[in-house]
Amino acid sequence: MVDITLVIPIAGAVGLAFAGYLTWYVFRKDLGTPEMQEIGDAIRQGAMAYMKRQYTTIIVISILLGVLIAALIDPKPWVGLSFLVGALASALSGYIGMYVSVRSNIRTAAAARRTLNEALVTSFRGGAVSGMGVVSLSLIGVAGVFFAFRNGMGFDPGMSLDAAIGFAFGASFAALFAQLGGGIYTKAADVGADLVGKVEAGIPEDDPRNPAVIADLVGDNVGDCAGRGADLFESTAAENIGAMVLGLSLFKFWTSLVPASLQWSESEALVWIFFPLVARSFGIFASLAGVLAVRLRREDKDPMSGINMGYYVTCILAAIFFFIATKYMMGDKYLYFFGAGLIGIALSIVIVYITQYYTSGSWRPVREIAQASTTGPATNIITGLSIAMETTAMPVIAIIIALLGAFGLGQMAAPTDPAIVNATNFNYATYKLIYGFYGTAVATMGMLATCAFILATDTFGPITDNAGGIIEMSNQPEEIRRRTDRLDACGNTTKALTKGYAMASAALAAFLLFGAYFERVATKKYGGDLSMAFHVDLAQPDVFVGGLLGAMLVFLFASLAIRAVGKAAYAMINEVRRQFKADPGIMERTSKPDYAKCVDIATKGALKAMVLPALLPVLVPVTFGIIMNMAGYNAPQAVGALLMIGTITGIMVANMFNNGGGAWDNGKKYIEAGNLGGKKSPAHAAAVVGDTVGDPLKDTAGPSIHVLVKLLATVTLVFVGLFV
Amino acid sequence: MVDITLVIPIAGAVGLAFAGYLTWYVFRKDLGTPEMQEIGDAIRQGAMAYMKRQYTTIIVISILLGVLIAALIDPKPWVGLSFLVGALASALSGYIGMYVSVRSNIRTAAAARRTLNEALVTSFRGGAVSGMGVVSLSLIGVAGVFFAFRNGMGFDPGMSLDAAIGFAFGASFAALFAQLGGGIYTKAADVGADLVGKVEAGIPEDDPRNPAVIADLVGDNVGDCAGRGADLFESTAAENIGAMVLGLSLFKFWTSLVPASLQWSESEALVWIFFPLVARSFGIFASLAGVLAVRLRREDKDPMSGINMGYYVTCILAAIFFFIATKYMMGDKYLYFFGAGLIGIALSIVIVYITQYYTSGSWRPVREIAQASTTGPATNIITGLSIAMETTAMPVIAIIIALLGAFGLGQMAAPTDPAIVNATNFNYATYKLIYGFYGTAVATMGMLATCAFILATDTFGPITDNAGGIIEMSNQPEEIRRRTDRLDACGNTTKALTKGYAMASAALAAFLLFGAYFERVATKKYGGDLSMAFHVDLAQPDVFVGGLLGAMLVFLFASLAIRAVGKAAYAMINEVRRQFKADPGIMERTSKPDYAKCVDIATKGALKAMVLPALLPVLVPVTFGIIMNMAGYNAPQAVGALLMIGTITGIMVANMFNNGGGAWDNGKKYIEAGNLGGKKSPAHAAAVVGDTVGDPLKDTAGPSIHVLVKLLATVTLVFVGLFV
Repeated sequence: MVDITLVIPIAGAVGLAFAGYLTWYVFRKDLGTPEMQEIGDAIRQGAMAYMKRQYTTIIVISILLGVLIAALIDPKPWVGLSFLVGALASALSGYIGMYVSVRSNIRTAAAARRTLNEALVTSFRGGAVSGMGVVSLSLIGVAGVFFAFRNGMGFDPGMSLDAAIGFAFGASFAALFAQLGGGIYTKAADVGADLVGKVEAGIPEDDPRNPAVIADLVGDNVGDCAGRGADLFESTAAENIGAMVLGLSLFKFWTSLVPASLQWSESEALVWIFFPLVARSFGIFASLAGVLAVRLRREDKDPMSGINMGYYVTCILAAIFFFIATKYMMGDKYLYFFGAGLIGIALSIVIVYITQYYTSGSWRPVREIAQASTTGPATNIITGLSIAMETTAMPVIAIIIALLGAFGLGQMAAPTDPAIVNATNFNYATYKLIYGFYGTAVATMGMLATCAFILATDTFGPITDNAGGIIEMSNQPEEIRRRTDRLDACGNTTKALTKGYAMASAALAAFLLFGAYFERVATKKYGGDLSMAFHVDLAQPDVFVGGLLGAMLVFLFASLAIRAVGKAAYAMINEVRRQFKADPGIMERTSKPDYAKCVDIATKGALKAMVLPALLPVLVPVTFGIIMNMAGYNAPQAVGALLMIGTITGIMVANMFNNGGGAWDNGKKYIEAGNLGGKKSPAHAAAVVGDTVGDPLKDTAGPSIHVLVKLLATVTLVFVGLFV
Repeated sequence: MVDITLVIPIAGAVGLAFAGYLTWYVFRKDLGTPEMQEIGDAIRQGAMAYMKRQYTTIIVISILLGVLIAALIDPKPWVGLSFLVGALASALSGYIGMYVSVRSNIRTAAAARRTLNEALVTSFRGGAVSGMGVVSLSLIGVAGVFFAFRNGMGFDPGMSLDAAIGFAFGASFAALFAQLGGGIYTKAADVGADLVGKVEAGIPEDDPRNPAVIADLVGDNVGDCAGRGADLFESTAAENIGAMVLGLSLFKFWTSLVPASLQWSESEALVWIFFPLVARSFGIFASLAGVLAVRLRREDKDPMSGINMGYYVTCILAAIFFFIATKYMMGDKYLYFFGAGLIGIALSIVIVYITQYYTSGSWRPVREIAQASTTGPATNIITGLSIAMETTAMPVIAIIIALLGAFGLGQMAAPTDPAIVNATNFNYATYKLIYGFYGTAVATMGMLATCAFILATDTFGPITDNAGGIIEMSNQPEEIRRRTDRLDACGNTTKALTKGYAMASAALAAFLLFGAYFERVATKKYGGDLSMAFHVDLAQPDVFVGGLLGAMLVFLFASLAIRAVGKAAYAMINEVRRQFKADPGIMERTSKPDYAKCVDIATKGALKAMVLPALLPVLVPVTFGIIMNMAGYNAPQAVGALLMIGTITGIMVANMFNNGGGAWDNGKKYIEAGNLGGKKSPAHAAAVVGDTVGDPLKDTAGPSIHVLVKLLATVTLVFVGLFV
């Protein structure tokens, strides 16, 4: 049994080594012309300066919260310590991704002067550094913290998981800041640059005369690279630890509850706790092969086909590895768990197709928005909102089928030995339920197996976007610009797909995180009796109001995130207008705009605005739990309802925002491609308004809500002791 | 005991007689100049033609569904029959409201030529016809159906309620069509008229050169009068019957379950079933006095102060009447129920203040939107969306406090006699729970006591709006226009308040409707054992997916409603553009536009688009319940989760839409009042876009979601037998 867990450190080491190799591969590429380097330097400096200030803020707040946790939460200092380690590891992941991406952009631009394939491979491998680095660090972190507490401190598995939960919370907490801060930064800069540059001054995107253009290019990095990196770091960490907590229930079940003759040895039963880590380890190998498979056969092919090839390689390998892992670890009923894993992989593919349907210009939704633009911005927005809300339907149906399927398969894997079914010292129905929950955990692991690859495709987006900006600003020939444009269009698609993936994995993971929460409630309140804890009865009004509060929390959070962008963009617009007015030489290209001032405005706006919304999902559930507990209500269930209905609402709103924003974006692109009047037509002006409205929804609020949903789960896991 | 129930027919008769008096009062007013009459006639004809076609569609669909229900649902033909009666009564309510309002507008316009007070009183009393008529009809309908089945058919109370549930469902069903159809009509016309008239052609609102202007004025009537009338008709019907079903549990408890020595006689115990009707009857008297109290002391006073005076009179009388009703009916613990009623009245006042804060130009939210308009339509929309989502926070907190308060008071009223507490033939905790649910029902009755008055203030809105339009189109002096403008501004506020009220009452009523649903589940599935039925355990995945589906249903419904407006508005815009282009004489006032063509486009668009979204909330829960039942899942709880989380999501989205739309509207008005550049400034153009986007949200989707939430409750009540 022990041997297969060896794959965990191996995969972690291989993943990091591969990230190192990719870095070497990208860094030895040439840097292009001095003009290009000058722009690249400006982006790099702006991004690194922002990251430094952002992470300083995050680390200060994390240390304060870490000390509080260390003082309050059992096992005493250790949860606080692992919280800090989680926050730092999340920060490190974001930093690595940024470090490489702001150096890959210029090299991609240089490579685009030669062939499309070279540019694709350079940018994709630059993105994959982030993908592999983040996933490997998360694996090493989770496993490391668990093993350190288990073997180093001599804790039993339950206590070491208790301590490790802090790690997941730290990761989510830092990630919410990173995603929010980065998201506000990028969209304030983007909206500011677009509204004055494109709409008022009528200059093209990425034009060097636009004072906000460098801030915009910096924003792509800090929002998409660092933000999404932190998002997926915490997703994998939180979902891994959640699955391990669920595994703990089965561990206890097989080592102490079942009749003595059927009991497993401790090392045998640890399989339930280790499986999530092993599955993830295999996922790193599958993604590694997928990354290497990304290339373009011919110059005239769509770059998306090269990426799709890599994705299919990753999915197929992930399925094969999953078969091996379940067969080796899950005993004679392994096929059920293998099936659950396949459901996870299948769901990720289905979501990719649904997202494409809603956000690509080839189908009804985007075309409807484009059509509505011909009657002005108001009808564009109305139609876009309608499409955005419609996009919740198909993913929800897919998620319902996947959840019920994975749950059912998990239940089928439950033991049927009459000695267990009829045992009187535990509630068999509850354990069957936990098998079902574990089935959804396995499906989540299946979905996350491709995580490193998906993250690579996401980070690829801003790298190509930046490369295009560098080409444009350094006045390279039209032919090269066309190459980077093709890569950039492909990057827009992959960014939308990643968000769909992140949202669906959050939904699939919901049950395993709820299960982990109930397990904690059972341990802290009911002396380990799970059958008492696995309930959230909405028919009780105290529980129902928790649900109301959870739904409201998502709306309020979204409101704060959107408003932050609005405010920062407002300052940016006024600054750009001021520069154009103060120095007419800018438009005539005789003098240079003050890029640094715009970078500074975005930085300050983002840092100031990220704190309140990021603290909200920590303070509200804990305060609510404590108040409900003091008032004599059923606090664990009320908080459970907050968590569950917050998750459901989060899924809806994030879906609406991500897909709606993508559809608005591509509605504009559809018109720009020459339809309905093309560029400079009134329809195009209306579509630009829609695109701008969609920006903060799809790049700030939507992705932040993914993190919010996970943070709600980890914060309740950590603080559950305070309100039971 | 029997005597106090006599108030029910008396109140119904007095209410109808008072509506008759108000009609006489309004109709004897003069009709103004022939020009004014010509416009008034056009509005009346357009509105009546639309109503005829809309109700023909509704009645045909209702008859089909009624036959289906009569064949499927026990007690067999009766539920179908009362469904039809409910649908017809709802249609009749809408018709009466419309009939009077399209005749009051011209009389209000004529009165405005004399004094503001006369115009206010005329328009308000015209609106009150609808308010009194709707509420009285609903009372007579509910009580009539119940008594007909109970005394005429000799049913026991349970069976007559079973049959009467059909009435509530019929009312909700017809109301959803009316609200959706009217809402689509009004906003398609409004958006079309505004976008081409105000934005493109630059002519003022209600300018007779605009071909869509008559359709716009018609829309105010069919959307706000008929739609909201049907909405509140079904609210009062559904919530009354829901409360009576809950009362049935307590009736059975006291007549058969408690130890024989403590049992009540049947006529004594009927108090639990009759109380909601009695409370409503007293509400009619309170509202009657309030309506008569509306007047303006001096010409220079804000008309809102006159309406507020009437509202306070209504609230104070309602509280006094509530004290009498509870003292007379509720036994020695009546003070708890009186307290619950006060909570309902207080909640309605609190919601009014919160709504004013978010939608009036005097506070931060609207000013922020206006400020954001200075940087263009995109920032206006972004800020507006942020404010819209923020507006969910305070109402939710108020609702949480009200729900827990009313529930707690209800529980305190539960019997504490040891013979009851320790009885073994029923679950005392469950009955304590039902007392709590009944507390929320009493609070809802408290809130609904002012319903007739609130509905009067709502219908007052379109009457004044129309009066202003008639004055503008018939070129009356500026001074008169200023009077109707003041009334119109006041009408905008009251419309926003009514929507806040309708939403909050839906939230407060949620528990009584859930309780009624559980009672039905207990009766149909658990042989009346309530302790088995009062559960919706979200920790079960089959229940959780019901919740996911419920949330999704609200989003999908909103999407369809918004899209319908977008589509119909698109057709309208193109028609208006076509007329301006085809006949340049229109702009030069040498020829008249073709108003009828625009009326026709709005009519067809509304009728075509209302069917699918209106059928969705009927088909989805029933189909889902049947599938889940056949698949062996816990269908009653899964459908319960759909109902509950659909309600929570509905509260959020309706709140967001209603308040956000109101804030956008008044953001525009704030600029029009001369701030930030005033009319014709770029900020104003941006604010017009925001106002237009808000229109379908606040006047189509938002109010329809109120009805949707109630329809989900009544549809599950009627069809529960199919999936248990």
